[in-house]
Amino acid sequence: MARWNQDENQLLGRIAQAFGGVPRGRIRRLKLGVGDDAALYTPRSGYETVLTCDWFLEGTHFLRNKHPADAIGWKCLARAVSDVAAMGGISQCFLLSLALPWSHTGRWLDEFLGGLKRASRRFGCALAGGDTTRREQILINVTVVGEVRAEQAVLRSGARAGDLIYVSGRLGEAELGLRLLKNNKAKADKNDPLLRKHLYPMPRLLLGQLVAEKRVASAMMDLSDGLSSDLTRLCAASGVGARIEQEKLPVVKLSAPFLRGGADPLKLALHGGDDYELLFTVPKAKAERLPRSFEGVTLTQIGEVTRQKKITLEHAGGRTETLIPRGWDPFRQSSR
Amino acid sequence: MARWNQDENQLLGRIAQAFGGVPRGRIRRLKLGVGDDAALYTPRSGYETVLTCDWFLEGTHFLRNKHPADAIGWKCLARAVSDVAAMGGISQCFLLSLALPWSHTGRWLDEFLGGLKRASRRFGCALAGGDTTRREQILINVTVVGEVRAEQAVLRSGARAGDLIYVSGRLGEAELGLRLLKNNKAKADKNDPLLRKHLYPMPRLLLGQLVAEKRVASAMMDLSDGLSSDLTRLCAASGVGARIEQEKLPVVKLSAPFLRGGADPLKLALHGGDDYELLFTVPKAKAERLPRSFEGVTLTQIGEVTRQKKITLEHAGGRTETLIPRGWDPFRQSSR
Repeated sequence: MARWNQDENQLLGRIAQAFGGVPRGRIRRLKLGVGDDAALYTPRSGYETVLTCDWFLEGTHFLRNKHPADAIGWKCLARAVSDVAAMGGISQCFLLSLALPWSHTGRWLDEFLGGLKRASRRFGCALAGGDTTRREQILINVTVVGEVRAEQAVLRSGARAGDLIYVSGRLGEAELGLRLLKNNKAKADKNDPLLRKHLYPMPRLLLGQLVAEKRVASAMMDLSDGLSSDLTRLCAASGVGARIEQEKLPVVKLSAPFLRGGADPLKLALHGGDDYELLFTVPKAKAERLPRSFEGVTLTQIGEVTRQKKITLEHAGGRTETLIPRGWDPFRQSSR
Repeated sequence: MARWNQDENQLLGRIAQAFGGVPRGRIRRLKLGVGDDAALYTPRSGYETVLTCDWFLEGTHFLRNKHPADAIGWKCLARAVSDVAAMGGISQCFLLSLALPWSHTGRWLDEFLGGLKRASRRFGCALAGGDTTRREQILINVTVVGEVRAEQAVLRSGARAGDLIYVSGRLGEAELGLRLLKNNKAKADKNDPLLRKHLYPMPRLLLGQLVAEKRVASAMMDLSDGLSSDLTRLCAASGVGARIEQEKLPVVKLSAPFLRGGADPLKLALHGGDDYELLFTVPKAKAERLPRSFEGVTLTQIGEVTRQKKITLEHAGGRTETLIPRGWDPFRQSSR
């Protein structure tokens, strides 16, 4: 309240100022940014526009006293950009809706904007506009606008029986980071390598584009709620099932203290959320076109699409079980 | 909790189902709607994309126990569509971010979607996607995507000294409706004509398009926070001032009980929010191209743009005063 003059115009002005130099220069097609009734963006001929929005709410998606402000800024954009990458698209610009208590319009806001700006630069996604209001809790909603060459978007609905199932990176790391954060009494140390994937996820932008451009994948989505939930969604959209091999899953490698603490690498990989890796299916004939890793991120074949519409997990000894979606769902769980 | 199976997928499915038939048929360019990582929209060649987002939050922008659910559905879209109209654009599709308590996923949600669907049809704006989560309070964010012919958008920044200032419709009606609603112990009667402009605002879509197509206006914005605040913003963006004539203002006509109750038509017109009328400036030489009314809505010249950068109000007797922005500002006021 003491820090600035309680005026919505000033808050918008400060946000725009924090992004000064980034938007217009970087994205020439953003003809008009923050400050008018709406933003103006010139789409490219021959491309489709990709549109996605994401909640990022205190208490539901992050904790005010645990998550550093700059990680909140980074992650609110990273999550939405990941959806565009999962279509094979390239992010162009974003709208930021921000509701804040007065107490958070000073240093907290500066740090938040710092993280958001780093993400904006890294993802090539310029601030186009937004809406601000005052609120007791911190509420964020981000809309990202991207583009993908016409007919090149990779949907969830194209998986066919016999296709191979791939994931990028390692699954469960972000969930492990979240647990560490929750168990820790202090605010998170931004530099703790075990926390970084939870705090500063890196959406697989270039991989998504590669998969779309090379037309290798029959279906793709990003892993935001955990493999068991997200694979179920992809299979439902495609009208197929899947068989996952436990031994192939790229699980986290846990040191003895974690294992003694009861952390289970398999469960983390199956049900842990927030990884923002890509999950995609590839017809067998095209599989050889896919590299084993891309830009330092391993691509792992974890199973196969089946005609039978259920998801099964095949254990090392040959035992199989039906995989039930147990990833994150806001309507089952109270906070993440 | 009892009403449906607590699953985010099901909620999204229900929303998509409520809109069944509306989106794809109406807007052929919406290639992919709800259900994938993101929506796909084919922009039209020769057009710019208009982007805007708006908070609509319980306690800040509406009251759970006062506002009918279908009015909340209507208004959350109307407000964002109005921003597109204020650029001279045509709305195409929208993204809905919705956070709800379990208690509101039954009848309340049905009524909300009913109002939203009516608005979607009326404004020609199709549901393209969204995000849902569970929350104690009802939180809504709407992003609208529109289009405007290249170089035809009307910005806030083009007003020049000597231009005439116009508003559409009558100012202050929505604020009057809000006061009635707040003073009334019961939930609002949807059919009360005094409440309708507050509950079901009608953004001036065709007027906005006419103004842009005929290229009559030098600047335009919509009146969402009240004339005193919004005119100040338009003038600041244009680097000019304004002189408003009190006698010309299209104020509400109040019956004796209201006047006795202390309602002041002038103050309502100057500072009342939520009218979603258009405010625009017209160079004198082009003023004759403007009709006196359009589609049943009166267009009123209320003053003139000045070189001197302040806003003055000229009263009937010739007395003038500086007009201070006293419209709605979330960082000054606690609820609307």
